[in-house]
Amino acid sequence: MALNNSTLRRTLRAYQIYGANTNVGKTIMSTILGKAFLRKYPGESMHYLKPVSTGPVDEADDRHLAQFAPETKTRCLFQFDEAVSPHIAARSSNPPSDSEIHEQVLAHLTACAKSGSSTLLLETAGGVHSPTPSGSSQADLFRPLRLPVCLVADHRLGGISASISAFESLHIRGYDVDAVLQFDDQKYQNYAYLKAYFEKKGILVLSLPPPPPHGQTQQEDFVLMSEYYAKAGRLDVVDETISKLSEKHTTRIQSLEEMSGNAHKQIWYPFTQHRDVSPQTIMTIDSASGDFFQTHSTTTATTTIPQDTILTPTFDGSASWWTQGLGHGNPSLSLAAAYASGRYGHVMFAGTIHQPALQLASSLLAHLQNHRLQKVFFSDNGSTGMEVATKMALTASFERYRWDVPKKEVGVLGLKGSYHGDTIGAMDCSEPSTFNEKVHWYTGKGYWFDFPQVKMVKGQWVIEPPEGMDEEFGGAVGFLSLAEIFDIQARYESPSGQRYQNYIQDTLERLVKQEGMTFGALIMEPVLLGAGGMLFVDPLFQYTLVQVIRTNPQIFSQSTPPPTSNPQAWSGLPVVFDEVFTGLYRLGRFSSASFLQTCPDISVHAKLLTGGLVPLCTTLASDSIYDAFLGSEKRDALLHGHSYTAHPVGCHVANTSLNTMLEMEAGGSWQEFKNDWREGAESASPESVTDVWSVWSKDFISRLSYAREVESVVTLGSVLAIKLQDANVGYSSTAAVGLQKRLLERSTGFNIHVRVLGNVLYMMASQTSKPKTLRSIEKLLATELL
Amino acid sequence: MALNNSTLRRTLRAYQIYGANTNVGKTIMSTILGKAFLRKYPGESMHYLKPVSTGPVDEADDRHLAQFAPETKTRCLFQFDEAVSPHIAARSSNPPSDSEIHEQVLAHLTACAKSGSSTLLLETAGGVHSPTPSGSSQADLFRPLRLPVCLVADHRLGGISASISAFESLHIRGYDVDAVLQFDDQKYQNYAYLKAYFEKKGILVLSLPPPPPHGQTQQEDFVLMSEYYAKAGRLDVVDETISKLSEKHTTRIQSLEEMSGNAHKQIWYPFTQHRDVSPQTIMTIDSASGDFFQTHSTTTATTTIPQDTILTPTFDGSASWWTQGLGHGNPSLSLAAAYASGRYGHVMFAGTIHQPALQLASSLLAHLQNHRLQKVFFSDNGSTGMEVATKMALTASFERYRWDVPKKEVGVLGLKGSYHGDTIGAMDCSEPSTFNEKVHWYTGKGYWFDFPQVKMVKGQWVIEPPEGMDEEFGGAVGFLSLAEIFDIQARYESPSGQRYQNYIQDTLERLVKQEGMTFGALIMEPVLLGAGGMLFVDPLFQYTLVQVIRTNPQIFSQSTPPPTSNPQAWSGLPVVFDEVFTGLYRLGRFSSASFLQTCPDISVHAKLLTGGLVPLCTTLASDSIYDAFLGSEKRDALLHGHSYTAHPVGCHVANTSLNTMLEMEAGGSWQEFKNDWREGAESASPESVTDVWSVWSKDFISRLSYAREVESVVTLGSVLAIKLQDANVGYSSTAAVGLQKRLLERSTGFNIHVRVLGNVLYMMASQTSKPKTLRSIEKLLATELL
Repeated sequence: MALNNSTLRRTLRAYQIYGANTNVGKTIMSTILGKAFLRKYPGESMHYLKPVSTGPVDEADDRHLAQFAPETKTRCLFQFDEAVSPHIAARSSNPPSDSEIHEQVLAHLTACAKSGSSTLLLETAGGVHSPTPSGSSQADLFRPLRLPVCLVADHRLGGISASISAFESLHIRGYDVDAVLQFDDQKYQNYAYLKAYFEKKGILVLSLPPPPPHGQTQQEDFVLMSEYYAKAGRLDVVDETISKLSEKHTTRIQSLEEMSGNAHKQIWYPFTQHRDVSPQTIMTIDSASGDFFQTHSTTTATTTIPQDTILTPTFDGSASWWTQGLGHGNPSLSLAAAYASGRYGHVMFAGTIHQPALQLASSLLAHLQNHRLQKVFFSDNGSTGMEVATKMALTASFERYRWDVPKKEVGVLGLKGSYHGDTIGAMDCSEPSTFNEKVHWYTGKGYWFDFPQVKMVKGQWVIEPPEGMDEEFGGAVGFLSLAEIFDIQARYESPSGQRYQNYIQDTLERLVKQEGMTFGALIMEPVLLGAGGMLFVDPLFQYTLVQVIRTNPQIFSQSTPPPTSNPQAWSGLPVVFDEVFTGLYRLGRFSSASFLQTCPDISVHAKLLTGGLVPLCTTLASDSIYDAFLGSEKRDALLHGHSYTAHPVGCHVANTSLNTMLEMEAGGSWQEFKNDWREGAESASPESVTDVWSVWSKDFISRLSYAREVESVVTLGSVLAIKLQDANVGYSSTAAVGLQKRLLERSTGFNIHVRVLGNVLYMMASQTSKPKTLRSIEKLLATELL
Repeated sequence: MALNNSTLRRTLRAYQIYGANTNVGKTIMSTILGKAFLRKYPGESMHYLKPVSTGPVDEADDRHLAQFAPETKTRCLFQFDEAVSPHIAARSSNPPSDSEIHEQVLAHLTACAKSGSSTLLLETAGGVHSPTPSGSSQADLFRPLRLPVCLVADHRLGGISASISAFESLHIRGYDVDAVLQFDDQKYQNYAYLKAYFEKKGILVLSLPPPPPHGQTQQEDFVLMSEYYAKAGRLDVVDETISKLSEKHTTRIQSLEEMSGNAHKQIWYPFTQHRDVSPQTIMTIDSASGDFFQTHSTTTATTTIPQDTILTPTFDGSASWWTQGLGHGNPSLSLAAAYASGRYGHVMFAGTIHQPALQLASSLLAHLQNHRLQKVFFSDNGSTGMEVATKMALTASFERYRWDVPKKEVGVLGLKGSYHGDTIGAMDCSEPSTFNEKVHWYTGKGYWFDFPQVKMVKGQWVIEPPEGMDEEFGGAVGFLSLAEIFDIQARYESPSGQRYQNYIQDTLERLVKQEGMTFGALIMEPVLLGAGGMLFVDPLFQYTLVQVIRTNPQIFSQSTPPPTSNPQAWSGLPVVFDEVFTGLYRLGRFSSASFLQTCPDISVHAKLLTGGLVPLCTTLASDSIYDAFLGSEKRDALLHGHSYTAHPVGCHVANTSLNTMLEMEAGGSWQEFKNDWREGAESASPESVTDVWSVWSKDFISRLSYAREVESVVTLGSVLAIKLQDANVGYSSTAAVGLQKRLLERSTGFNIHVRVLGNVLYMMASQTSKPKTLRSIEKLLATELL
C-alpha cells in the first residue's frame, strides 16, 4: 500500500494536465508550462510524467517534452503502441490495474519530492473520462491524488461545450481546476467565451496563439515548433500564469496551515470540551476519498512525518460518526445529489409527492421485510426521527388505553446505556447519564433495564449478567461461536430464556402496579447500543422483552384494551426500534431487527441511509400506529414537520446508496468476511450462522481479546469495539485516549483517526472498505496491544 | 408568459436530440428516428424542430430532414448564416433572448400537440453546452422543458470521454437521458464501451453503422444517404428503440398517474390530517425550475386543463416551506453540491475542520454585522438549531445566576404565537397552542407576551394593540409608511415607547417577584412570527423587550450577578433570535435582527441558508455564552451533536447561496422593488427607509387591504400575508382554504400552490422571482379578491 505518500508537499508543485478532448494540445501546453517553470525556477527540477501513453513510442508525448524542453525529467509509466484508447490498446498485453498505476504515480511523486524543490506536470491521456487500461475512467482513477488541474480547452468548433462539460466532470469529482489553458483560434473564438466563463469562477485562464500547422518534414516540424516555443516563452502572460500557479500552491498550503487556528476561533464543536481544544488538536481535512481523509495537522513535532509533507492519508476510523457507507467522494453519490438538485432542488412535502421520496419509501418497506410497517415519515436526522417515533408511539398507546395520568407522565421502557439523539424529546427517552445531566430541560421519562452483555473475553464469546445480578440472570455463560448466541428460538426455550421472561415480567408488574408508573412504548437500539459505549446486548434479552410486553397487555392497562381484528396491530406497547446506527448494513444486514427475529411497530433509519453524504431520516410505522392520528380535527394529526422534509437530494442519494448496498450483498461483495466467520459456527442453526459476521477477522478478534490492556472485544458487521482495562469506568474514563493518540501519530502507511467512548475504543469500516486496509489496521492494533 | 403550455402531453411524444459534440450526426440520427416513428405510427404526424440553426440555409438540418424524411413537418425558429456558434453568429443581428426562444418552442410544442397524436424531435445546436444566441448554455435554456433526451454519442477518437462528460452535464441539470444513439465506428470502438456504460444506467443504447462518406456530387450524396437510410430502416434495432422510446413516454405518464395513489398508501405526511387526504388531494411534482413546479394532479374534473395535458406549471407559492431562495433546479447549487460531495462526501466534524464549514462560519460572522457573535455551531434544521440555542442560553444564565430552582423550571420569555420547531425542546419554548396540545411530552416553559401588531388596513399602515389591551398599549395608531414604523429610535423616545417600557418592566417584575417564575432566556423571531400566522410584531415592542431585559438584570436574580469587564457579554438574559424563517434575505435583509437595531447574543439560521436545497442550520453565539461551557470536565461542554454536523455538501451549497444573494444585493437586483417602496416613505429616517421594502408592489398591497373579504395585509421582503375575515379565527379557521383551492385550479397562465395558516393565506417569492411573475400573481389575486 503506497498510501504513505503525500500528494501535497511544500517543495513539490504538482499539476495534472487534463484535456477537454483528445488532440487539444495537452503536450504542447505541458511543454510551454514546463519551459516556463524552468525559466522561473532555474535551480529546481522539472518533472514530466505520462502515466499511460498510447501510440507509437517515437511519437509519445514524453519524447516531445524531451525534445523541446530537454532539461525536463520525463517519464512514462505504461506505454502501448496502438493509437487508440488505453483500454483497447492494453487488451492484448497484461493491463496494469488501477491501483498499480495509482501506486506507481504516488511513488514517482515521492521520488520527485525527495529530489529537492521541483515542479511536476502529470499529463493524462485523451479527454477527462478517457478509459484507463482497466476500463475505468481516468478522472476517477486519479481523483484520490486530487492534484490541482490545468485543463486544456478545446479550441475547435464545438469546443465551448466540450470544455465546459469536461470542466463539470472534473468539478463534480471534487477536483480543483487551477487554470484553463487554451489556443486563441480566431475562427471559432471559443477562447473569448471560455475566458469570461472560467474567470467568473475564479479560475486562471491562459490564452495563447495556436501552434503552427505541421511542416512537410520532421525537421521542418522541429524548426517550426522550436520557433513557436521560443515565441511563447517571450509572452508575459505565460510567466504571469506560472507565477499565479505557484502562488496557488503556496496559498493552498498556507490556507491549510491557518485553518485549524481560524476554526479554533470561530467553530463551536459538537460534543467537545473546548478547554481541551487548541489549534494543534484540530485536524484539517483537505479532502477525502474511499476510507481515507487527506489531513493536515499542525502537530508535526511528535510525529515521524517529514516537515515537507502537508497532507497525509488518515483512515476514517469512526466512519465519520457512523455515517460512511460507500466511501468518501463516491462519484455515483455526487451524480445522484446533483441530478436531484437539477431536477427538483428542494420541493415542499406536505400533500405533494416526488419520485425519489416515493421510491425510497417503497424500497424501505420492501427490504426491511417487516410485515407490520406500512407508512413512512421523513425527517432530517436520527434525533428528529426518534422524536417522531416517540410521538407516534405515545399517542397510539394513549389513544388505546386512555390512562388517567398527565400526558407527560407517560414514560418509555428501554435499556440502560441507550441513546437516541440530542434533542430534548430524544434525550428524555434515555436514562440520566453524563450526556444529559447538565441539560436544563432533560427529564428522563421511563424505566431502563439492566441487561446481559455479549463479549469476547480471552478467546471466548460469553454472555455476562449485569454486575451483581447473577441471581436474576444466572452467571456468565460461554458460547462456541457468536452465531450460537443468535440462535434465539433455541435459547428462548432454555432455562436462561425462562429466567429472562420471569425477570422482565416481574419487573414490569412491580413498576406499574407497585410503583404506579405508566409506560407508552418500548424503545431500543437492536443488538448494539452505540453511544452508550458499544454495548452488545444479549439478543435473547431484547427478544424476550418484546415478547413479554406484546403478550401481556394487561400489565399496561387495568381496563381491557379494545379487541382488534388486525393481526398486525401493536399489542401491549408499541415497539420502537432505533436502527439509526445499527441498521442498513452497519451490522451486516439491511435490518438489524432481523437479528432479534422481531418486527417492531415503528422503525427509525438514518446515518447509512444516504451512504454517508447528507442528513436524512425515515420513521416507518404500522397502520395500527398511523390510525391513532386519524380524526376529524387537524390537531389530531401528527403535527410535526421540518422544512426540508423528504428533500429530493437526500432521497435520491439514499435510493442510490441502498441500491448499491443491496447489489453488493446480492453480488457477494462481503463473502470473504462471511466465510471467515462461518467456520466453526456450525453449532448454530444454518440461517443465523450465515449472516452473523464481521469485516474484522475472526482470528484477530480472538487474539486481541487476550491482550493485557484489553478487558473485552465485540464486533459485528463493520463495527469493532475494544474495551480497555480501566479502574475509572465509563464516559469519563481516559484509558482509550492514549491508544487513540498513538494511532493518529503512527504514520507508517497511514494514520488512523478513531473516536473513543470512555474506555472503549471503536473502529468502524465503511461498507466498501478493502480487506487489505482492514488487515493492515488489525496488524497495527496488534502491534500496539499484543 | 407562455407558461400555460404543458411540456408533457399524452398525445405528443417529444424528444430532445443533444449531441456529445458538434458534428456527431445529430441530424442523421434525427432522420433515422423520424423515419422510424413514421413507419411505426403511419397515421400520426412527425415534427422536427430546430430552434436555432447556424450555417448556410441550404445546408441547414431541417432541410436535410425535409429531403430524406419528406413526410416530416420541419421547422427552424432562428437561422443564422455563419457556421459558428450561435452566440457569434447572432452578434450582427438582433439576437433573440432566451425567454423568446423558450416561449416559441413551447408555442410550437402546443401547436404540434393540438394537431393530433404526434412525435416531435427537437434538435439542439452543436454540443450540450453550446451557447445560445444570448450567450447562455442551451442545456440551461431548454432545462425547464425537461424533454427526455436522445444523446448522440461521439464515435470519434476521444469520443468516450466526450460522450460521458456530455451525459454528466445533462444529468446534473436533472435531464432524463432516455437513449444514447451512436455509430459503431470499428476503429475506436467507442460504441462497445459506451453501450456497457450507459446500459448499466438503464439507458437505451442504439448502435448503428456509420453513414457513408460524402460523395463527389450533391446528387451522389443524395443517393448514398438514401441508401443508408433505407438500410437503417430495415434494422430491427431501430424499430425496437422506437418501441422502447414510445414505451418510456407511456410509462412516464402512467407512473405520474399512479404516484399519488401510491403516496397515499405509503407516505405519512408532516402536519397533515390524513383523514382529509386522498390520492386526488396529493399533487405529484415531476420536476421544478425557477419558481415553478411541473405538477400532475388527478383532479382534472374541476379544472379547465385539457385531459391531454399531463403536467402543468404551478407557482411554488410557499417557497417550498419558506426554504426556496435561488430557484429550483439552480445549476450553480447542483454543481456546488456535487463538488463538495466529490471532494469530501461527509466528513466527521468533531475536532476537525474543512474549508466549506470554516468559510460558512466566517461569512455568517462577517455579514450578520453583529459584534456580539464569535462562534458558530452547526446542526441540521431550525428545530435542532433552536434546541442548541436554548441549551446555550439556559446554561449561560444558570452558570451566572445559580438560581436555587430545579433546572427544568427555568423558563424562557417570548411572544404569543411564537414557533421554533417540532422537537420537544423547541416546542417547549412556545406557549400552549393547537400545535402542541396533543403532544405528550410538551410542557411550555416560560411566559409569552401579548404584543402590538403591524397591519395594512384599508390603505393604511397601523399598529394595533392586542385585543382588550388598549389601556396598556394605547389604541391603534396609523403610520404614513411601513418604513416609519421602523424608525425605532424616534419611537422609543415617544410616549408609546415609554408605555412599552413600563408595561414590560412591570410584567417581568410581577412574574419573577410575585409569581416566583425563573427565566433563563429571551427567545424571539424578529419582526415576523411565521407559523404563528405571519404575525407582524411592532418592531419597537421587540426592541423595547430586549432593552428592558438587558438593562434590568436585577429582575432575574436577587443576588448581584458578577461584574464583567467584557462589554459584549450578555446582560439581564441571553437574547436568542430565531432567524430561521426571517433571516438571510427572506425579509429583504441579510439579518432580520437589523430591523430591530439589536444584536442578539445567540442567532439561529436555516431555511434560506442553503438557498433551498438541503437541510442545514447554524447557531451563532457570543464568546460570553460559549465561555459558560468551558470547564475541566467533558460534561461541562455542550454535549450536543448530529452525525452530519457541518456536512460539506450543505456548507458549500450555503456558501454558494449566500455569495449569490450578497452579489444580488450588491448588484442592485432588487432595486426595482426598493424604488417602489421608497416613494412616499420620506417621513422616516433615511437608513431605515432605504431597506424596508417588499417584492410585492406597494400599490397592490394597498388596494388588496380594501377588499371585502380581507381583514388586513402584511408584507416585507418576499412575504405577503393576507388575513381574511373570519368569525372562526386561528389555526382551525378554514376561511383561506377556499381561496387556496381556487388558486390551485385556475390554470390560466399557471396554477398557484399556496399554504394557509388558519384564516391567513400567504405567498412567498424566492429571491430570484421575476417581477413579471409576481405582477401576474397580483393580478390573479386582485381578480379573486377585489
